[in-house]
Amino acid sequence: MPFVNIKVTQGGVTADQKQELIKGVTQLLVDVLGKDPRTTFVVIDEVDTDNWGIGGQSVTELRKQGT
Amino acid sequence: MPFVNIKVTQGGVTADQKQELIKGVTQLLVDVLGKDPRTTFVVIDEVDTDNWGIGGQSVTELRKQGT
Amino acid sequence: MPFVNIKVTQGGVTADQKQELIKGVTQLLVDVLGKDPRTTFVVIDEVDTDNWGIGGQSVTELRKQGT
Amino acid sequence: MPFVNIKVTQGGVTADQKQELIKGVTQLLVDVLGKDPRTTFVVIDEVDTDNWGIGGQSVTELRKQGT
Amino acid sequence: MPFVNIKVTQGGVTADQKQELIKGVTQLLVDVLGKDPRTTFVVIDEVDTDNWGIGGQSVTELRKQGT
Amino acid sequence: MPFVNIKVTQGGVTADQKQELIKGVTQLLVDVLGKDPRTTFVVIDEVDTDNWGIGGQSVTELRKQGT
Repeated sequence: MPFVNIKVTQGGVTADQKQELIKGVTQLLVDVLGKDPRTTFVVIDEVDTDNWGIGGQSVTELRKQGT
Repeated sequence: MPFVNIKVTQGGVTADQKQELIKGVTQLLVDVLGKDPRTTFVVIDEVDTDNWGIGGQSVTELRKQGT
Repeated sequence: MPFVNIKVTQGGVTADQKQELIKGVTQLLVDVLGKDPRTTFVVIDEVDTDNWGIGGQSVTELRKQGT
Repeated sequence: MPFVNIKVTQGGVTADQKQELIKGVTQLLVDVLGKDPRTTFVVIDEVDTDNWGIGGQSVTELRKQGT
Repeated sequence: MPFVNIKVTQGGVTADQKQELIKGVTQLLVDVLGKDPRTTFVVIDEVDTDNWGIGGQSVTELRKQGT
Repeated sequence: MPFVNIKVTQGGVTADQKQELIKGVTQLLVDVLGKDPRTTFVVIDEVDTDNWGIGGQSVTELRKQGT
């Protein structure tokens, strides 16, 4: 009965890519820990680049600076 | 001082239902653990059905298949 | 398919009380939103009082001061 | 490699204020624990006032009542 | 810069299995979204079976009943 | 009514340092957003280095390799 939360920055993640993430991480938990996929939940959060910081700066700022 | 996070799929949850969830879970913590409701926080996250997976498939896909 | 995370301070929460929290919050989601209990997850986190802060002070400190 | 999640109610938080929160909390982790800012992540969640409860009521309701 | 949190029930997860989960989910984010592995974080939480509920019962209880 | 969760790797974080983190982040939310400290919660999670991954490797492994 695992629960997986994946946080990524918002922008251009397609429904197909989300489906691939859900399928891939569920299979990983089957392969590594023998978990039952029927009770494996995955929740994807897409976070605005203004709201995600690394190294003390927002991703919006970092992208403007080309880093 | 409990903190409760409730994640549900998005779609049609009304402000009244949210109010009922907040009231109900706060009262539960009073009844079971004797917690002070004034310092009990509840945060509800509504998640797009594309972003929630069970059994390796998104809820969007599962609903299309009628399961 | 709701997911609920309950965070409380550590100390004296019995297995029976945890069972009551799990049962109560699951029933609340059935009653208010008509959710299927079989795919309702509840995870309880017990947090050391040194690691929980309110008003800028740890709960350990607040309890020493009798507040 | 700290990870910090800040949840606040939605409404009027500017990109500059978010930048100040990201910078401030990253610096705090440098100052207190000597953490490397390059691997310090901050994610800010803005929560609808209908979806945040205190004392058994939503913040939307509390603000209507002027409390 | 993804952040992934994996919650599983406690009991017998080895350091090697944790390493496989970390490696596998990081690679998945590279493959599906082209994310930089150097800024991909994975945090695994192991949850006591008393503290995890499904269908209104703790996993401890469910295992006693052989379900 | 902000809620802040700080995740750091386990090991040697003292009660005084936790108190400084709680005080500092609460003050930051007062200074930047004018939040009421009495309803500002901070929860610190200390994560085993086996359970935290960066770049596809656990922090335990990374430290062995001197990186």
